[in-house]
Amino acid sequence: MVPDAIRTWQMTEPGRLESRTVPTPALGPDEAPGEIRGCGVCHTDLSYFYLGVPTIQKPPLTLGHEIAGVVVAGPERLLGREVVVPAVLPCNDCDICRAGRGNRCLGQKMPGNSLGIWGGFASHIPVPAADLCPVPAHDGVPLEHLAVVADAVTTPYQAARRARLGPGDRVVVIGAAGGVGSFMTQVARGMGADTVIGIDINAAKLERMRGYGADFTIDPRGKSSKDVKELIKSYCRSRGLPANYGWKIFEVTGTRPGQELALALLSFVGTLVVVGYGTEETSYMLSKLMAFDAELIGTWGCPPAAYPQVLDMCVSGRIALAPFVETRPMSEIARVFEQAHHGALDRRVVLTPDF
Amino acid sequence: MVPDAIRTWQMTEPGRLESRTVPTPALGPDEAPGEIRGCGVCHTDLSYFYLGVPTIQKPPLTLGHEIAGVVVAGPERLLGREVVVPAVLPCNDCDICRAGRGNRCLGQKMPGNSLGIWGGFASHIPVPAADLCPVPAHDGVPLEHLAVVADAVTTPYQAARRARLGPGDRVVVIGAAGGVGSFMTQVARGMGADTVIGIDINAAKLERMRGYGADFTIDPRGKSSKDVKELIKSYCRSRGLPANYGWKIFEVTGTRPGQELALALLSFVGTLVVVGYGTEETSYMLSKLMAFDAELIGTWGCPPAAYPQVLDMCVSGRIALAPFVETRPMSEIARVFEQAHHGALDRRVVLTPDF
Repeated sequence: MVPDAIRTWQMTEPGRLESRTVPTPALGPDEAPGEIRGCGVCHTDLSYFYLGVPTIQKPPLTLGHEIAGVVVAGPERLLGREVVVPAVLPCNDCDICRAGRGNRCLGQKMPGNSLGIWGGFASHIPVPAADLCPVPAHDGVPLEHLAVVADAVTTPYQAARRARLGPGDRVVVIGAAGGVGSFMTQVARGMGADTVIGIDINAAKLERMRGYGADFTIDPRGKSSKDVKELIKSYCRSRGLPANYGWKIFEVTGTRPGQELALALLSFVGTLVVVGYGTEETSYMLSKLMAFDAELIGTWGCPPAAYPQVLDMCVSGRIALAPFVETRPMSEIARVFEQAHHGALDRRVVLTPDF
Repeated sequence: MVPDAIRTWQMTEPGRLESRTVPTPALGPDEAPGEIRGCGVCHTDLSYFYLGVPTIQKPPLTLGHEIAGVVVAGPERLLGREVVVPAVLPCNDCDICRAGRGNRCLGQKMPGNSLGIWGGFASHIPVPAADLCPVPAHDGVPLEHLAVVADAVTTPYQAARRARLGPGDRVVVIGAAGGVGSFMTQVARGMGADTVIGIDINAAKLERMRGYGADFTIDPRGKSSKDVKELIKSYCRSRGLPANYGWKIFEVTGTRPGQELALALLSFVGTLVVVGYGTEETSYMLSKLMAFDAELIGTWGCPPAAYPQVLDMCVSGRIALAPFVETRPMSEIARVFEQAHHGALDRRVVLTPDF
C-alpha cells in the first residue's frame, strides 16, 4: 500500500540531516514505489555530506543509493516482490543504452543524487519500474544485507566483466579490504580467478580477506612500488606463477599512491581497471601501454541487467555478505555518518527504517 | 633456390651502413628462406639508426621488418609462394600465444631487430615458416607494395580490432596523414566507421586524406585542445552527430602534444588507442576514465593470424597502397634513410633489391 506521506532523513544542506515527512508524489504508470527495508551507507554519500561534492539535485534531498525493499504498487509482475533498486537507473532509450552501456547512460537517474529529491534513507521511494531487480530466494541472507548489492558488489562485478575476468586469471586488488575492495576481492575469486593478491593499508582488515578470496596480502605502508613488486615476484616464484604478464589489477582506492602503485604493477598483456574515484592526476608514459599491449579501463556502476548474476553469487554464498555488513536503525543515521566519515566502522552499515 | 650467400646492407654500428655478403646459414626444418622483393623503411629503423634506440641483436645486423618476398625453400605448401613476413613472429608455444595475444609474445622474433642478424634490407632472409603469410591474387597491386602490410597497415588494423571498431563508429585519428596514420585512417573507413576525423600538422598531406577515408580534417597547429574540441563540436552539429560520447580516438604520433590532445578528446564510453610510440610522460586524472566508463588501450604489432584480412583489404582496394607507397632501389638505402630522417619523403619507401 502506498502511504500518503514518506518519512525521510533529508540532507537540507551539506553537513545537516533533518527528519522530515514529505507527501507522497503522484506516481506515473511506469513507477513502482518501494517500501525500503535497508539502505547502505556509501562513501559517495559522505562525499556529498562532508566534502562538498555537489549532488545533481540541489539540497534538500534524501541521500542513499544502496536500496533493498518491497514493491507496494505498480506493475503486477513486481507487486509484493522483494527488489534491489539499482544505483544507476538508465533511460533505456538512447544510443548508449542500446549499445548495452546503460550504466553510463547520460540520462541516467541515481537515487540519492539525481532521482528528484528521492533517496534511500527514507521509508519509501518512488522509482522507475523498468530496472528494478527482483531478489531470488535468499535463505539465510537477510534482505537488508542485499541492499549493498546495489553498489558495493555490482560495481566490482561490472569492473570484473570489463576486465573479462574468468577462470585462471591472476588478480591484484589495491584497496582489497575496503567497503568496495573487499567485495572486489570476493568477486574476483567468485568469478574463478586462480590467484588474488590483496593490497591494503588496513592490515587487520586485510588479514581477514585471506578467508574471503585473497591468496596473498601485502600492506604497502613504508614500501616503494618496487618493494611491492619484489614481494609479488617472490610470491610468484614460490607458487610457480609468471610475475610479469597477464595480471589484472583493480585499483579501488582512488588515491594517488594507489593509482601510482597500480600503474607500476601493470605489465605485458595486463589490464588495469580504475574502480575508485579520486581527483588527483598521475603521470605516466602512455607508450608503455603500447609496449605492454596493455589496457586501462575505467568503470562506472553496473547495468541493471547484470544484477541477477550478482544476486545469485550473494544468495549462493560465493560472495559472503554477513561478515562485511551490519544493520543499524535509520534513526542513528547522523551517528553512523560520523563514524563512517572517521573510519570508525568495521563493516558496511545498512540503515533499516525505524525513524 | 637457396643461394650460398646473402647480399645485405648491414648496420655495422648506429649511423653506419655497409654492403656485405654473408654466407647463408644452415636452415632448420621449420625455416623457409625468402627471396626479398621489397622491404619498407619504417621510423623504427630510423630510431635504431639515428636515435640510439638499441636493437636486441647488437650490430652488425640488417635492419628492415616490412618484407614481401617469395619462398625459395622449406615446406611444400609455401614453396614458390609470394609471402609477407610478419613484423612480429610469435613463438606460438607460450601462454600469451595460446591466449591469442601472440603479437605480444615475450619470445617473439622481429626481423631487423631480434631475428639474429637478419632483416629485410637484403637479398634473402631465413625465417620461421609457421607464421609466413601467403599473398592472395593481387591484380594491379605490386607485390613490393604489399611489403608495408607487415607493419604500417597491420598495426592500424590490430589497433582497430582492439577498439572493436565497426560499422557506425565515430573515429578521430591523431597523426592521420603520417606513414602509419594514413593507413589508420583508411583502415577505420575500410572497417565501416561512419565518421572519420583526421588531425595532422602536415596540412598538405592531411588534405589528401579526404580522398582516403577522412570526412573532416583539422590542422591543430596554433590551436588549443579546446579549440580542436570546438571544431569537432561544430562539425558534429552540422552533421547531426553526438560530440560527447562514443568516439574512438587513435593516437598515432607518440608525441606529447598528440597524446595530450587525445586525452582531452576522450569522453563518455570512449576509447583511446595508443598506437604511436614516444618516451614522454603525460599527466591525467585517471578517475576521468571511471566517470567516462572509458578505456585506454595500448597496442603492439598484429598477430600473424590477422594478416590475411588485411591483405584482402589491400588487394580489393578498400585500402589504397599506391598513392602512399613508392619503390626505390635498395642500393639507395643510405640516401633514403637520410631523406626519411629529414621528413623529405612524401610516401613510404619500399626498397627493392638491386645491390
